[in-house]
Amino acid sequence: MSRFFSEKYIDLEPYVPGEQPRNQQYVKLNTNENPYPPLPEVTKAVEEASRKLYLYSDTECVDLRKALARRLEISPDELLMTNGSDEILNFAFMAFCDKHTPAYFADITYGFYPVFAAINRVPYETIPLRDDLTINIADYYHKAGTIFIANPNAPTAIALRAREIEEILKRNPYNVVIVDEAYVDFGAESCVPLIRKYDNLLVTQTFSKSRSMAGARLGMGIGNPELIRDLNTVKYSTNPYNVNSLTAAAGVASLKNDEYNRENSLKIMDTRDQYGRKLRELGFEMTESQANFFFARHPEIPGEELYLELKKRGVLIRHFNAERIKDYNRITIGTPEQMDRLVEEIKAILEDRK
Amino acid sequence: MSRFFSEKYIDLEPYVPGEQPRNQQYVKLNTNENPYPPLPEVTKAVEEASRKLYLYSDTECVDLRKALARRLEISPDELLMTNGSDEILNFAFMAFCDKHTPAYFADITYGFYPVFAAINRVPYETIPLRDDLTINIADYYHKAGTIFIANPNAPTAIALRAREIEEILKRNPYNVVIVDEAYVDFGAESCVPLIRKYDNLLVTQTFSKSRSMAGARLGMGIGNPELIRDLNTVKYSTNPYNVNSLTAAAGVASLKNDEYNRENSLKIMDTRDQYGRKLRELGFEMTESQANFFFARHPEIPGEELYLELKKRGVLIRHFNAERIKDYNRITIGTPEQMDRLVEEIKAILEDRK
Repeated sequence: MSRFFSEKYIDLEPYVPGEQPRNQQYVKLNTNENPYPPLPEVTKAVEEASRKLYLYSDTECVDLRKALARRLEISPDELLMTNGSDEILNFAFMAFCDKHTPAYFADITYGFYPVFAAINRVPYETIPLRDDLTINIADYYHKAGTIFIANPNAPTAIALRAREIEEILKRNPYNVVIVDEAYVDFGAESCVPLIRKYDNLLVTQTFSKSRSMAGARLGMGIGNPELIRDLNTVKYSTNPYNVNSLTAAAGVASLKNDEYNRENSLKIMDTRDQYGRKLRELGFEMTESQANFFFARHPEIPGEELYLELKKRGVLIRHFNAERIKDYNRITIGTPEQMDRLVEEIKAILEDRK
Repeated sequence: MSRFFSEKYIDLEPYVPGEQPRNQQYVKLNTNENPYPPLPEVTKAVEEASRKLYLYSDTECVDLRKALARRLEISPDELLMTNGSDEILNFAFMAFCDKHTPAYFADITYGFYPVFAAINRVPYETIPLRDDLTINIADYYHKAGTIFIANPNAPTAIALRAREIEEILKRNPYNVVIVDEAYVDFGAESCVPLIRKYDNLLVTQTFSKSRSMAGARLGMGIGNPELIRDLNTVKYSTNPYNVNSLTAAAGVASLKNDEYNRENSLKIMDTRDQYGRKLRELGFEMTESQANFFFARHPEIPGEELYLELKKRGVLIRHFNAERIKDYNRITIGTPEQMDRLVEEIKAILEDRK
């Protein structure tokens, strides 16, 4: 660090994104990307938008918010678009947490939450998952701070029901509850229909997973207009033009044929069923996934070893070194062809160990 | 504001971007956009990148940083890419200011600086420009905090020489000096060649103005690798995928033919000379612009009145209500055709007042 770096950040430990190797062709099952590309309509929209690139993007994302509001059956003023869902999560930490309002989240969840807390100098408390990696909703009742719940949770892939989250919302009328629904479109229940009933609910979603647009960076916050207004105050005080015009155009085009995205999600859910069975047959123990990834361990191979062995063989999965989950790996659900390759390499690794 | 909004932000006054009217065709000279679109190669690059949108963008922007480092004659590790230059400025406020390290900037300069200070809860002091709206460099010597200088300054359009900024750098060896060069490519001197001599220098630039890519949101910080590392710590603690893959591809393509961008800047500088004379002939008093805009007042028309009259007639310029500059307007330099229309409408307004 330079001699000029603010002392408030001296202990800051940044988030470490999944590796994105550039110089080798891997079967990439490590960052929960959708294996299916967006439609040609998205390419066409982006191409058109590029001709107007000399003009600023629309700070209000009017067209995109209209299209998305229609899709979500809400009003555009219940919606804020951001540069990926990391940005809306950071805005939520900024707007709804401070030294008097700590953050609460699971001990095993999206690894960025503690980093957002640290950069915003917000105290936080982690709430342990049960031994089976599920959330005990009663642990989230009557908190004196802001609650972050990833649903489905990552990296566990386990989802709560919307009515379970509603129990948490009811018992925290003075606190904001953020439900991070990055992976919701793969079979879990969304809390979006609850935003009018609970003014303390902020839902975050993204185009990165079910809409095949991880590279475009498009996230959103969904909540009652007052919460959205606060988040806009933060946005207009940090980066008003946070969503570029290419990405906004891609988003509008993607929503025009959201059925295609929906079909891809269904395909991925089918692949999940099929290869979940195969991995279990190979001896894996895994959680009940409602996301586009597995969270799995094998009684005979330590998590890190499997990760490293697969990497040697050209298949990338993600390993986390945290104590409670070090036996596990997170494995993105790719195309059937990619999953065949995964299964094949795992078989070979198991064979080698005999 | 909602009842949940953090009390630390209760007094926050967000930045107000220039108006972007959607429902009428204006001659738009209010947000300092480049009137010339980017090259077809940019469209092609974006089109190609859109097919890989299901994959995450490169957090390190390797290709873009390589291309840009070559162009700037620096090393890629002296460079950080951001979601517009607003983001790098905010990162600088985060990394190099705090309650013990205030910010210093001119009383008349980019209106976002005090907002960045407020959102980061950084104390700041403004340093008055001279009566002629120029900066007195001696006012910036031996400061006990972080200095922000827009060069050329906005909205005044006046530039300091690089050697004048060097005097400031020399006399602030314990503080970071940020030189915001959003408008540098229209005839001012860049401080980039000074980054190896002064480890306290951070230069910020953007693709929005001279490279016709305002809609793509692409900014950068340029400084010694230690400063860049600090800024990366902040980036990886807020939004690691801050630059999307469409914009990154557009940036690489734009740099492949940077000569085209250079020619557009020269065209704009010619238009500036030509229409600067015409406006002076009409009685305007204006600063010596080294940017892609004029800062002008007319002895016979209050600034706001001229702005409103022109708006009625379909020409948008920008008016700021701050006391010292309320007689002025900021007028973007467009195409000669746009400037002809401006001159014509101004003549008609002056005629009407006789």
